[in-house]
Amino acid sequence: MSTRAMNLIHNDRLFPADPVMRGIARRLHAEVRGLPIISPHGHTQAAWFANNQPFPDPAKLFVQPDHYIFRMLYSQGISLEDLEIGVDELKDPRRVWRIFAENYYLFRGTPTRMWLDYAFQELFGLEERLSGATADLYFDVISERLRAPEFRPRALYDRFHIEVLATTDSPLDSLADHQAIRDSGWKARIIPAFRPDSVVDPDFAGFEKNVAKLGQITGEDTGSWQGYIRALEKTRARFKALGCTATDHGHPTALTADLPAADAARAFETVLTGHADARQKELFRAQMLTEMARMSVEDGLVMQLHPGAYRNHNRKVYELYGRDVGADIPVATDYVHALHPLLARFGNEKNFTLILFTLDETTYTRELAPLAGHYPCLRLGPPWWFHDSPEGMLRFREQVTETAGFYNTVGFNDDTRAFLSIPARHDVARRIDCVWLARLVAEHRLDEDEAVEVAHDLAYNLVRKAYRL
Amino acid sequence: MSTRAMNLIHNDRLFPADPVMRGIARRLHAEVRGLPIISPHGHTQAAWFANNQPFPDPAKLFVQPDHYIFRMLYSQGISLEDLEIGVDELKDPRRVWRIFAENYYLFRGTPTRMWLDYAFQELFGLEERLSGATADLYFDVISERLRAPEFRPRALYDRFHIEVLATTDSPLDSLADHQAIRDSGWKARIIPAFRPDSVVDPDFAGFEKNVAKLGQITGEDTGSWQGYIRALEKTRARFKALGCTATDHGHPTALTADLPAADAARAFETVLTGHADARQKELFRAQMLTEMARMSVEDGLVMQLHPGAYRNHNRKVYELYGRDVGADIPVATDYVHALHPLLARFGNEKNFTLILFTLDETTYTRELAPLAGHYPCLRLGPPWWFHDSPEGMLRFREQVTETAGFYNTVGFNDDTRAFLSIPARHDVARRIDCVWLARLVAEHRLDEDEAVEVAHDLAYNLVRKAYRL
Amino acid sequence: MSTRAMNLIHNDRLFPADPVMRGIARRLHAEVRGLPIISPHGHTQAAWFANNQPFPDPAKLFVQPDHYIFRMLYSQGISLEDLEIGVDELKDPRRVWRIFAENYYLFRGTPTRMWLDYAFQELFGLEERLSGATADLYFDVISERLRAPEFRPRALYDRFHIEVLATTDSPLDSLADHQAIRDSGWKARIIPAFRPDSVVDPDFAGFEKNVAKLGQITGEDTGSWQGYIRALEKTRARFKALGCTATDHGHPTALTADLPAADAARAFETVLTGHADARQKELFRAQMLTEMARMSVEDGLVMQLHPGAYRNHNRKVYELYGRDVGADIPVATDYVHALHPLLARFGNEKNFTLILFTLDETTYTRELAPLAGHYPCLRLGPPWWFHDSPEGMLRFREQVTETAGFYNTVGFNDDTRAFLSIPARHDVARRIDCVWLARLVAEHRLDEDEAVEVAHDLAYNLVRKAYRL
Repeated sequence: MSTRAMNLIHNDRLFPADPVMRGIARRLHAEVRGLPIISPHGHTQAAWFANNQPFPDPAKLFVQPDHYIFRMLYSQGISLEDLEIGVDELKDPRRVWRIFAENYYLFRGTPTRMWLDYAFQELFGLEERLSGATADLYFDVISERLRAPEFRPRALYDRFHIEVLATTDSPLDSLADHQAIRDSGWKARIIPAFRPDSVVDPDFAGFEKNVAKLGQITGEDTGSWQGYIRALEKTRARFKALGCTATDHGHPTALTADLPAADAARAFETVLTGHADARQKELFRAQMLTEMARMSVEDGLVMQLHPGAYRNHNRKVYELYGRDVGADIPVATDYVHALHPLLARFGNEKNFTLILFTLDETTYTRELAPLAGHYPCLRLGPPWWFHDSPEGMLRFREQVTETAGFYNTVGFNDDTRAFLSIPARHDVARRIDCVWLARLVAEHRLDEDEAVEVAHDLAYNLVRKAYRL
Repeated sequence: MSTRAMNLIHNDRLFPADPVMRGIARRLHAEVRGLPIISPHGHTQAAWFANNQPFPDPAKLFVQPDHYIFRMLYSQGISLEDLEIGVDELKDPRRVWRIFAENYYLFRGTPTRMWLDYAFQELFGLEERLSGATADLYFDVISERLRAPEFRPRALYDRFHIEVLATTDSPLDSLADHQAIRDSGWKARIIPAFRPDSVVDPDFAGFEKNVAKLGQITGEDTGSWQGYIRALEKTRARFKALGCTATDHGHPTALTADLPAADAARAFETVLTGHADARQKELFRAQMLTEMARMSVEDGLVMQLHPGAYRNHNRKVYELYGRDVGADIPVATDYVHALHPLLARFGNEKNFTLILFTLDETTYTRELAPLAGHYPCLRLGPPWWFHDSPEGMLRFREQVTETAGFYNTVGFNDDTRAFLSIPARHDVARRIDCVWLARLVAEHRLDEDEAVEVAHDLAYNLVRKAYRL
Repeated sequence: MSTRAMNLIHNDRLFPADPVMRGIARRLHAEVRGLPIISPHGHTQAAWFANNQPFPDPAKLFVQPDHYIFRMLYSQGISLEDLEIGVDELKDPRRVWRIFAENYYLFRGTPTRMWLDYAFQELFGLEERLSGATADLYFDVISERLRAPEFRPRALYDRFHIEVLATTDSPLDSLADHQAIRDSGWKARIIPAFRPDSVVDPDFAGFEKNVAKLGQITGEDTGSWQGYIRALEKTRARFKALGCTATDHGHPTALTADLPAADAARAFETVLTGHADARQKELFRAQMLTEMARMSVEDGLVMQLHPGAYRNHNRKVYELYGRDVGADIPVATDYVHALHPLLARFGNEKNFTLILFTLDETTYTRELAPLAGHYPCLRLGPPWWFHDSPEGMLRFREQVTETAGFYNTVGFNDDTRAFLSIPARHDVARRIDCVWLARLVAEHRLDEDEAVEVAHDLAYNLVRKAYRL
């Protein structure tokens, strides 16, 4: 049997083998495949679009920033040193690329493989499978293309048919790159999202300094609770002025609290000393989620909560390589008790949207779908991180739809640092939603005309509505 | 594409697209579709059958009592006030109906939609999809039909081919309606089930008064532990005399205890003061489950346990609208440690059946199937509440069968307040069981003649046996 | 419809009905069905192969040792006394066999049924389904065959095409049977595995005596921490000399600890007094896992961890019949926090492999796949015990592959006490892996030439590599 694939990606990829379901899936997908991409939550850099410089070589582009890739290589005994992780200027990008290529078989059956093959074929015209044998071919072809004008960030943004792209930004960020994009006159909607973890989570590296810096930026006394709150409110307004419509909160748990004002102020004073214990820090984070909800009720920014990761689980790797290197591990997460204080206060507010994400899939049927199927403020974010995958997406629809329906979900988030993977990720999401709908139609649980409407809603309308775009 | 469906429900609904599996599912279903309905656990009202009055208008019939419906509408921002929830005489039932009809698309992909379409077509002959455009047509057609004699409760009972129907009743209920049905000479088997939460759960509204009232009814001194226990035993006997074969217990957790008699008495005294703390209340409930098990060993009533809901999670909605309005949310539930005290005492008793339900599907493979696959007293109740759905039922069979087999399960419970949904719910359960069996047959994991036998057992025999009917 | 099956097992058993997927599954399975069996983890007895005596009658062979079988019978009210469980010489094996045969329908839809039918047909040539009607036929046919030379243990080992078979052995075992096999000159690779629970778990019956006996065997003073550790190291070396490549640890939880040496010594002294409390025992077990990891780093034995069973849940049955009688029940299991101490110390070691198993499937996507997809030392064991079943194996692949890939898994373990079920169990595993791969190929998520490679790896190569065979 030949080891060459005729194509890396197939037109019917992800569609069920059954001809009836495949036929329906194809028809539904034909309706939505051309819709613009709305990316309301991700980790691309505004600077790319402000500066519009070419992307560097294949290793720097694909391997180095993508912890999905190098955590898998590391899990099989390949050292991060050999992959030049954390190195600014790669010493031998071709060597890094070869290591990756020789081990590409490790990604069989993973979404990473599917995203990469999509980019290799659709963007770079490659049709032979990546392997040790084709490593140099890939390196050369990709390197050459990256130098062409149509591979600059702005050209790719247009080519990807993106309608809105949100970045994720610290309250300490000047948003100068966002301003520069606006000033440049380029017609694109690239907007910031307000991610205040660095000034809200006492466990965040440099928390006290970050709070002080927030005071300097805003001209508020962030040594006091009132000043700190005003500083956050002002910063949200600054983000909003540049198009921001949403906040994002990455907490270890979903715990919320609704303390009396004096207790909240005291909790703030405690964490600011740097001597708070784990319980006090957790209580402060919990209170801050409720404060953020109050601000959202007032300024209309949509609130997103992403809890449940044990960050930097591998102590040695963290000491050598820092955050976000593939060693964050999900933990069991409670929402029902944890969110009760916040929901008791704001759960029935008309002008409030709280989008919940999870890394603990057991909460889909047990907690999240029942909560979202009742509270008017709640919506369910798409399957996230480890679950942003064909099986993960199918489990989400299978487990969430019967209790929460389609209309308490919010379409897709690509959540990516890898700009080139955006079309591939949305492609997977649209296909899997069509697969789920095709099954409902084939089993006479939904009429096809309704499925067409739902497919449009899942690919385009719900995300616009939920994120107020 | 037309927005009109030719029919609301299809003859092959829920069957897999694959022609081999669909063929087998059809054959199996043909064997069981005509079997009588046994409904051993539900929330219909004996008064309906005692009085045999016509059901009121469509809004009062379908929308107002069904928290599956109005929680979904509420989750999308429709106020309970506009839906006239909790109102005795609807001011504008047609307006309520229209709101529901206009938002019927929210139920796409949910079992509620499937149950409703079944009733609309099978009972009312409606064939166009419910929507804003057809709202008035529906309202008029249904209103007219409800006035006809063949839509009275007793006529529907016969038409639905029900063999046994159990209600759920408080120990404080006189069961006068049940007596009246018997006295009327109408040949139907409508029986009570003994649900003592109101006199067993110290967190139940009015607990102390309820216990006192239980004393008055039974002529026992329910201020003493011995009198309280005797009062419960007497009431069980009273229920049994009217055909009751089962008890039902809705506890926050599955915790059981097996205290020495003196400690149990002291726990009772403590909760009766009204000053017990959360731990003391939980311990009392735990002890009462073991007391109920002892009574079951003695009087032969089958025991049902439904744990794991955080009741009335939405504080504001509870204050305005009370219990059972769609704001009960499941929580993670332990059975292995929790049931140990009860099982250590009665787990090997010959004359004891304890049927377990769950809202935490993670316990299917981890706890419930292994427990039921060992203890002779244990049986698994069908997928419950949020999981009474096509996907929920498939997950149940897929996750439970390999460890517990089919014969440690007990057929279907419709558990419904909506009398008109009973045939639709049993229809879904029978179809999904046939789908699961068809897959086993198609994959040569079970011969078709055996599958026919199992289909009969799941639809009819197991429920009769488990509930001792 | 006839109640006779033409055959007990079908050539296409477990393959999907869909003709495209079935075709691919057949082709993949044809590539691997003939590969030798490697069984790196199980509970067969070396004595069988050392002595090579005939197996006794069908009841003694199939029913008595197999808690999968008699727990199901017990769950349906059949007494363990009637099944002669725990009896050395069966009084009436034919009667036990008949009870089993009459209740064989209880196993419909279970893997036990599939394994048994495989053995009945493939080994004994039986083609009519087991039932009350065929009980005597089965008893007679099987009894006769068992007397033939080709049914002796060594002949079956060869017939089953086994390449390596690991037993599971206590450090107190002399391994005389293993030595005898080697001395006999019979060409078979039957090796011990080091399972130290009896001298490491203070809750193990006879723990203090076992530790003392370990001292006698090794000539070390196991009353001291240093002597105890040396005794364990010596015993591992003794096992290694007889071909052992792996250790196995069955703990109630996955908790690990990394205490300073003085604290570890003190913990040992405490548990050796016999007066340690539950917390102290758990801490000692936790520390011992990290000690075992250190030894593995040094001697290269692969470490296996099987946590999460509540042992001997049924108190009465335990008192009458002892351990391993089908009353062990899984509980919720945490890995992320529990393994942190061990992983912080040895997680990045090159010469260390820790294979994790679980009875809590919720950890597949949430904890185990993310951990194994990062740490170089971690591999995921196959679905275990209750999950060693077609649905259990499919859930494993569906939930693990997208995050951990195929190459962080280790092929199949049959883990069985029932020697005759070994080919059937490996047959199920190979088929289900081909089913999963066939779906990936049919949905254009993997090319077929790659799937062939993966099928070989899952059936043969990965287990050899992971267990260093």
